[in-house]
Amino acid sequence: MRTVFWDYNSNQLNMIDQRLLPSTFEIAVFDDYHNVAKAITDMVVRGAPAIGAAAAFGLALAAIKSKATSFEELRRELNTAADLLLQSRPTAINLHWAIHRVLSHIPGSCNDVDELRQFILNEAQAIADEDIEINKRMAKNGAQLIQDGDTIIHHCNTGALATVDWGTALGVIRMAHDQGKHIHVLVDETRPRLQGARLTAWELSQYKIPYDIITDNAAGYFLHSGQVQKVLFGADRVASNGDVANKIGTYMLALAAFDNNVPAFSVVPTSTIDLSLNTGNLIPIEERPQAEVLDITIAERKVSPEGATAKNPAFDITPNRLITGIITENGIVYPPYDENLQKVVITTTKP
Amino acid sequence: MRTVFWDYNSNQLNMIDQRLLPSTFEIAVFDDYHNVAKAITDMVVRGAPAIGAAAAFGLALAAIKSKATSFEELRRELNTAADLLLQSRPTAINLHWAIHRVLSHIPGSCNDVDELRQFILNEAQAIADEDIEINKRMAKNGAQLIQDGDTIIHHCNTGALATVDWGTALGVIRMAHDQGKHIHVLVDETRPRLQGARLTAWELSQYKIPYDIITDNAAGYFLHSGQVQKVLFGADRVASNGDVANKIGTYMLALAAFDNNVPAFSVVPTSTIDLSLNTGNLIPIEERPQAEVLDITIAERKVSPEGATAKNPAFDITPNRLITGIITENGIVYPPYDENLQKVVITTTKP
Repeated sequence: MRTVFWDYNSNQLNMIDQRLLPSTFEIAVFDDYHNVAKAITDMVVRGAPAIGAAAAFGLALAAIKSKATSFEELRRELNTAADLLLQSRPTAINLHWAIHRVLSHIPGSCNDVDELRQFILNEAQAIADEDIEINKRMAKNGAQLIQDGDTIIHHCNTGALATVDWGTALGVIRMAHDQGKHIHVLVDETRPRLQGARLTAWELSQYKIPYDIITDNAAGYFLHSGQVQKVLFGADRVASNGDVANKIGTYMLALAAFDNNVPAFSVVPTSTIDLSLNTGNLIPIEERPQAEVLDITIAERKVSPEGATAKNPAFDITPNRLITGIITENGIVYPPYDENLQKVVITTTKP
Repeated sequence: MRTVFWDYNSNQLNMIDQRLLPSTFEIAVFDDYHNVAKAITDMVVRGAPAIGAAAAFGLALAAIKSKATSFEELRRELNTAADLLLQSRPTAINLHWAIHRVLSHIPGSCNDVDELRQFILNEAQAIADEDIEINKRMAKNGAQLIQDGDTIIHHCNTGALATVDWGTALGVIRMAHDQGKHIHVLVDETRPRLQGARLTAWELSQYKIPYDIITDNAAGYFLHSGQVQKVLFGADRVASNGDVANKIGTYMLALAAFDNNVPAFSVVPTSTIDLSLNTGNLIPIEERPQAEVLDITIAERKVSPEGATAKNPAFDITPNRLITGIITENGIVYPPYDENLQKVVITTTKP
């Protein structure tokens, strides 16, 4: 089952509600793009590629459910929907990429409202279908780097749940496993939302890949111990100089890998590469609700004292000097990233 | 109120049960040293200096409650009790230091069983009383480094709860605050046991020192942002070369501080310095129960999937090259630590 998929019988968008996993598996159903935007903000769906597909299908919902009677009216409504969807989360560039792709690909010859409706849905479906194919190409490229017997530290969730299906960094691990390589994954639990402990552990148990959950704090210990051969993570946006915006904690993890000569790879579709920004410091970092930090309990006891406040940046920037390589569907990119990243990015322009 | 204190009316040891804070404040009462050892293992009491005092009072319980009728019999019982208490936790050297101090200070002239009982209790009480005085000297030494307006990242809990009273790294912050300096603390929540979010936040709110809780993952983000002027933590053991064993995550925090030219200080009584080990790699690292990683809930949902396993090293080693200085009660030690640490350690030998 895909993380994000269109139901052609009901013309509705379906998404696995990732907030409830692993204890509950539930499909959330959407027939209004406003709710899709809210679902992206609330992290019903998360993971840069999955967000991109969800936003594209959000546009499709806007098109299909619209009562517009003219091409121009629908076109205006699509722009309104695009504006809302673009605001749902700031850091992952895939959201922008997907919406831009859908809207910019509308053929010049298209001037019929029903034809436009159909085009938007087809394009969203194409983005979803291509995502899986791209993930598998990334996975094959990356799996070449994985040796039989490797122990790999993995941050956040970058699996089937973070994409339409298959995964980015976790997709590399899955491919290497499918190739018969024995792999052990140390799963960074990834506070505050614990996507590692909740989602990556759940996926790995389904793929029957051996793992242990560790606190994010423990990654440095294991890297120093000599037990770890690779560090893998995804990205929410990569600047043209190879700086990587990814889930909070990636920077410290990459620092510890670098300090112990363990290679660290970011695994991303080229849609995550933002050649318009020449440094990671220009990437907007989302500040999420304090409650994500404060509202945890242990043995039914609330952890933080009454009245406690928190700061909760959701992403950080890992400087290019700490990134051994960037694995994409078009090949593995090594430094100097300024020169080499643009070679793998095939600009998709209106045909 | 002290974290660890002797009740002279009932001849019992009292300790604040730190597992229940901040939601419940409860005093645990001990009249058997076996239970003190278990309480140290179970982290009813934690923090290197507090553990040292608890172990010394554990010996006092063994002495006071013993039915021994001869000096030799009580001396043998004390050795048995010492062996058990020494096994309660492996990393913090203060446990060894305190037990060694009590037993090695028994005067040669002492050969009466009741005199021995009284000596052990007096010596445990002296360790507790001196701990507070030592903490305040450390605090004054360290507070000189703190500027008005500093934002400080603090790891784990090193406050009154981690000592008999006052605190080590948090004691420095408290002293600077008492001197009228405006300080903002970014409190590393410190997974897995969350001593930062639970205990440090609770202490800071009582001292009325402004703070925000952050996930351990977020420290790198804030260090890179230029908003942080100091990083402070305690230690469970310091090797003679200045390598610091401290709560898991300290290494990655110190790396991120170093990468951003933010000074990082370890604040320790000299009883935490183990001149017998010339490198941190010789310090034993405790592996604690998997449940500490796995048993957390968010919104009443268990985080990790059924059957998940975890690894849980409780400490890591921060290499001396990442430590700007080590603040002790006898002064601030700077590199080269090999030369300079021994100058502040005043060996306490049997008089």
